[in-house]
Amino acid sequence: MKKHNFFAGPAILPEIVKKNASKAALNYKNKGLSLMEMSHRGPEIVSIMETAESLVRELLNVSDKYAVLFLTGGASSQFFMSAMNLFKAKDKVAYLNTGTWSTKAIKEAKHYGDLYEVASSKDKNFNYIPRNFKLKGGTKFLHVTSNNTIFGTQIKTFPKTKALMIADMSSDIFSRPIKVDDYGLIYAGAQKNVGLAGVTLVIVRKNLLGKTGRHIPTMLDYQTHIAKNSAFNTPPVFPIYTTMLNLQWIKAKGGIKAMAKRNKEKANLLYSEIDANPLFVGTTAKRDRSHMNVTFLLKDEKLNKKFLTKCKKAGIVGIKGHRSVGGFRASMYNAMELSSVKALVKVMKSM
Amino acid sequence: MKKHNFFAGPAILPEIVKKNASKAALNYKNKGLSLMEMSHRGPEIVSIMETAESLVRELLNVSDKYAVLFLTGGASSQFFMSAMNLFKAKDKVAYLNTGTWSTKAIKEAKHYGDLYEVASSKDKNFNYIPRNFKLKGGTKFLHVTSNNTIFGTQIKTFPKTKALMIADMSSDIFSRPIKVDDYGLIYAGAQKNVGLAGVTLVIVRKNLLGKTGRHIPTMLDYQTHIAKNSAFNTPPVFPIYTTMLNLQWIKAKGGIKAMAKRNKEKANLLYSEIDANPLFVGTTAKRDRSHMNVTFLLKDEKLNKKFLTKCKKAGIVGIKGHRSVGGFRASMYNAMELSSVKALVKVMKSM
Repeated sequence: MKKHNFFAGPAILPEIVKKNASKAALNYKNKGLSLMEMSHRGPEIVSIMETAESLVRELLNVSDKYAVLFLTGGASSQFFMSAMNLFKAKDKVAYLNTGTWSTKAIKEAKHYGDLYEVASSKDKNFNYIPRNFKLKGGTKFLHVTSNNTIFGTQIKTFPKTKALMIADMSSDIFSRPIKVDDYGLIYAGAQKNVGLAGVTLVIVRKNLLGKTGRHIPTMLDYQTHIAKNSAFNTPPVFPIYTTMLNLQWIKAKGGIKAMAKRNKEKANLLYSEIDANPLFVGTTAKRDRSHMNVTFLLKDEKLNKKFLTKCKKAGIVGIKGHRSVGGFRASMYNAMELSSVKALVKVMKSM
Repeated sequence: MKKHNFFAGPAILPEIVKKNASKAALNYKNKGLSLMEMSHRGPEIVSIMETAESLVRELLNVSDKYAVLFLTGGASSQFFMSAMNLFKAKDKVAYLNTGTWSTKAIKEAKHYGDLYEVASSKDKNFNYIPRNFKLKGGTKFLHVTSNNTIFGTQIKTFPKTKALMIADMSSDIFSRPIKVDDYGLIYAGAQKNVGLAGVTLVIVRKNLLGKTGRHIPTMLDYQTHIAKNSAFNTPPVFPIYTTMLNLQWIKAKGGIKAMAKRNKEKANLLYSEIDANPLFVGTTAKRDRSHMNVTFLLKDEKLNKKFLTKCKKAGIVGIKGHRSVGGFRASMYNAMELSSVKALVKVMKSM
């Protein structure tokens, strides 16, 4: 039976990505070696890393002012690395708190700058995105979480400010157009829209680096990885290869605009059913509804088990909500086909 | 044509590991999902991580006093993480400098303790392991690199000291028996004897942690990962799975003692040819010769090209030496069969 993969991450990958990754794990391009056992200094791997980088640049229109890096440690490591590399101790930096990941970012970053929380939606269990907040004068950076995987909200219009933005885009990068020039730094754990768990994408404006005055361990200094094209030490080759395959798939499907259209279509279908079906209710403010992670409840909790059983029978997996919200969460990253959302809506209608 | 993979790392993997990893990348246990797109909180991945940990414990006889962690960032990140987590600023810590990786470890660790280089073989381009060095009184830790991938030396008998050892075992862990209780911490990038680039194995004595008094970012604190069984954030699932497969293969082949026997046999065969063949010469002190990375030269450099061409024709890859030593390097990790070393020796004899 075909599985409909609604996992929040690690998450769905396109069929062609899985097929080619599987082939490469056994025998890369019929060279008699697995991609997993080839030197990262060899021409094959160097070419994979260059291709992955140039696809990021092409798809997101990243200028030469920015470095594109493939690191490890996930977004959780970027919470402190971004601050450690960009903030001077006295720099005023604002953080917008829109959920679990923003809260964690604040906890790590506050050690490296004069950090303040400019607004928060904690008062309503993070079910909306704060608006009309004002930055303090002289604020150098504004950190945002573009999409909140757990709470199902997404920043639809990014604030216009004098501060450069730093954005955790782990769960919606490559899902819609962005203007990279508005950012000092963008980071994303790969395991949602980019590729495989084990690689972290960082896009950083180069002229911001090397100015903090503090000691930074070599592996935590972006400049190390810029100088060595993300191969200062052995990079996570196989996860980067899968990322490259995924970016090739996005390009073949028409690029970021096509992804945005596809994602909107899926989101509209599911949110329409949530609003039309008297048994269900969405958990977030309508205008902040995420196109990536759709969070919703059954009004009558006693029906939860029945719904999950029906989902399972229909091949739907990964639909259970995060404990912070309860109910259900349908994660619908780029790779998900509309037909999978239709399968879910069909089950909802059958309740 | 069968390839004989002598790469220094990422390096050779057993056939069964490649086969099963390839299968899992497409469809894990016929569940209709790739292992790469399954939640790290699901029972399948949790079970993989538990199995990998228990295999490490079983194969190396690791007691409950130690935590076994699967992290990211490579040994290069452990250079500073080990120091940041274990050393108080005033702790006297000794480093044995046996090559490129020791030198890098010293550079990173010196920021966190009262570090001194207890001995070095730099005077002879690191072609031997220093002996009979004395630690200063009160030295708390002694850091060693058990095997020097670049220079082809290996510590055969670990020093007996009052200090606890910290060891970078990236290129020879699981290749021979070790006594874990002699160590405060052991770390290893996985891409040589453990599995796939993108995961780093750490074995750390738990009662040493939490005592430095310094601020440690959450992701850099071993205690974070101990508390969450290496899944505080999304771990590099696919590299960990490959590690698990590799450890299962080691166990099936008879465990660490069987690996040591196998590795000795391969090393003896190749070193015998280097010593017997008048065209070749080894680069290291005989008593310190590595069983993992065999470094050697052609006495007449003009023959280098001819040798490499012959190797290529015989399906031998990854034999070119590191630029720091020149000549040739045959890396013969656990997964390499004796037949591949025989193929190399045959080419050497034909010169």
